Amino acid sequence: MQIQVGIVGAGPAGLMLSHLLHQHGVDSVVIDTRSREEIEGTIRAGVLEQSSVDLMTETGVGDRVRQLGMVHEGIELRFCGRGHRIDFTDLTGGRGVTIYPQHEVLKDLIAKRLADGGDIRFGVSGVQVKGITGDAPTIGFTQDGVEQELTCGLVAGCDGSRTMTRYLIPSPEPRQDHFRQYPFAWFGILAEAPRSSDELIYAHHRNGFALISTRSATVQRHYLQVEPNDNVHDWSDDRIWQELRTRVDGAEIKEGPIFSKSVLPFRSFVCEPMQHGRLFLAGDAAHTVPPTGAKGMNLAIADVHVLSRAMTRFFAAGVRTALDAYTDTALPRVWRAQHFSWWMTSMLHRMPEASGFDLNRQIAELDTVTRSRAGRTLLAENYVGTPFD
Amino acid sequence: MQIQVGIVGAGPAGLMLSHLLHQHGVDSVVIDTRSREEIEGTIRAGVLEQSSVDLMTETGVGDRVRQLGMVHEGIELRFCGRGHRIDFTDLTGGRGVTIYPQHEVLKDLIAKRLADGGDIRFGVSGVQVKGITGDAPTIGFTQDGVEQELTCGLVAGCDGSRTMTRYLIPSPEPRQDHFRQYPFAWFGILAEAPRSSDELIYAHHRNGFALISTRSATVQRHYLQVEPNDNVHDWSDDRIWQELRTRVDGAEIKEGPIFSKSVLPFRSFVCEPMQHGRLFLAGDAAHTVPPTGAKGMNLAIADVHVLSRAMTRFFAAGVRTALDAYTDTALPRVWRAQHFSWWMTSMLHRMPEASGFDLNRQIAELDTVTRSRAGRTLLAENYVGTPFD
Repeated sequence: MQIQVGIVGAGPAGLMLSHLLHQHGVDSVVIDTRSREEIEGTIRAGVLEQSSVDLMTETGVGDRVRQLGMVHEGIELRFCGRGHRIDFTDLTGGRGVTIYPQHEVLKDLIAKRLADGGDIRFGVSGVQVKGITGDAPTIGFTQDGVEQELTCGLVAGCDGSRTMTRYLIPSPEPRQDHFRQYPFAWFGILAEAPRSSDELIYAHHRNGFALISTRSATVQRHYLQVEPNDNVHDWSDDRIWQELRTRVDGAEIKEGPIFSKSVLPFRSFVCEPMQHGRLFLAGDAAHTVPPTGAKGMNLAIADVHVLSRAMTRFFAAGVRTALDAYTDTALPRVWRAQHFSWWMTSMLHRMPEASGFDLNRQIAELDTVTRSRAGRTLLAENYVGTPFD
Repeated sequence: MQIQVGIVGAGPAGLMLSHLLHQHGVDSVVIDTRSREEIEGTIRAGVLEQSSVDLMTETGVGDRVRQLGMVHEGIELRFCGRGHRIDFTDLTGGRGVTIYPQHEVLKDLIAKRLADGGDIRFGVSGVQVKGITGDAPTIGFTQDGVEQELTCGLVAGCDGSRTMTRYLIPSPEPRQDHFRQYPFAWFGILAEAPRSSDELIYAHHRNGFALISTRSATVQRHYLQVEPNDNVHDWSDDRIWQELRTRVDGAEIKEGPIFSKSVLPFRSFVCEPMQHGRLFLAGDAAHTVPPTGAKGMNLAIADVHVLSRAMTRFFAAGVRTALDAYTDTALPRVWRAQHFSWWMTSMLHRMPEASGFDLNRQIAELDTVTRSRAGRTLLAENYVGTPFD
């Protein structure tokens, strides 16, 4: 089978790319080893930047996010027993973020692709991508026991952080992997409880960071900074609520039965370049951000926004210029998101080796940022996300 | 001899404090182990914040700084071969900094104190401060072979980074010393050369930081980040100019004979509290900042601005409230200056253990800050200094 773009991975990057290409008349096939049920049923947090919601709306997949998503017009930074609101609406000229779980975005994209006659192959196995440095790369796989092969004009590697397509770019030349491990983890809980706060609370405390967030009126999602090798079983419900109360230092926390406990790894990763021959990486296949900046899904969407236009120009006019410039176009935004995530992390977390100087400087940084309109604006405009163009 | 305030140290903090107290009718004696010639002849750089110049002007010691100081309305940040101007005037509503050497400030203050009948004892020896936790602390010293003793209502420790007064506050309780050593040094040169740039250039380069600054139309002051144990003799003039050109990466550097080479230590220090009984520390006796933020002299002036008013209230009304609150009032500004100096340092210097991730994140930080008006404003308002009140 001959197609224009073969897309490996039906996550946010792959499905959004297929959707955007379709808008421009470019055909594609998306393959994924997971079933549709698994993809739509894997519950993951989601914070959408203004530009991500705008792009969904403009391309006809924004109905549910506008209806069901919770628009947040600010966050609270807490330190030294006081809360400081970062007012997105006021500081960014009306921009904000929308809390909308990632699997809901995937449901919307899958439904739209199928309604538009899109070709998504769920539950495939034995995926093999070949010939990316030639003129006709292929994607081989098995579906329902039948071996198939797609001959592609271009291939998109959108297979997430457990990517196989990334490794098709030879390393160390040209591929360089930039990796940073943080010396702590996030311990996340889900609780059946009323909302503690209408907006997210990012709390700095000498014991470590805490984040108060929400899933719905009845389900809350909170996080505590813990040691990377902390065991979930060491944290009784009582200890969790006690530590949350200590760290938010004065803000009210509403308790309820905890029904999920998990530890999230905390790392940054960027692979450079994001392309090789006719292969182009997008989303987590190319980069991972720690969750502090809430940038993961948005970077995937920003990547494919750039990539879909470059691919469209390639097929429409046979011009490779924009394709060749894909990495240079997409990467500065990726690095800025890495910086923002690092900034939020380093400003709010307790570093294991932190001295009294470090702790006081960190509080002075929070003081400098929150007391200055320019400081609050710098944080707000990065949190809600800069425009895609 | 009985006086209201005994001041140890005739640097910017001590002389400015004596001057401000005189404005409010509080008498003081300033002592220093150095001669007047030594104090006025020790050439040191100086960047005055807007509020420092304003305070000098309002209190009658601003004639020469306004006449001879060079007002800088911006700086340039350079990275990746491009310059980005931080326009102070535009970003801060007309504020700026004034380049005016520290010893010129000292000349102005000494001349004014003496003209106002002030009492400054130069070249004393054997200084001993006693009884700071009692009601009548004393400062003993020898002048011209004669032993003298001042009985003071209050004592100010303004004796700089090689302070002895700081150690009168018992440690570790109540005095805590917060210290941070940076893993590099600044190599400074003075050259007879024309100006390379009208404004300071702060250059980020993978080889390390460089600063292009100026003393006058014919004398230039440049700095290179070097290893802390680098030897001045390893740096030939040719190597210095070559490395400066490499690091500013495209900006023109005008050469000339180098007549001074020195290595500056690079550290941060804060002592807390800044007071004990009737002793009050101000300036470098209480805290040291690295030179990146150009905050040293300004913090000394900000300290004594707070301290002079608290002392005045104490003598005028017998109220200790403001004196008791001195540390809590002055210290947040000190910590914010420490943060700002750390920020400029960490954003612009090459850290010895920096990975490719760290270098790219640093460039992304410079990109984030310079491309955003909010980012440039946050930097500008901290550089020109926030208002004293």
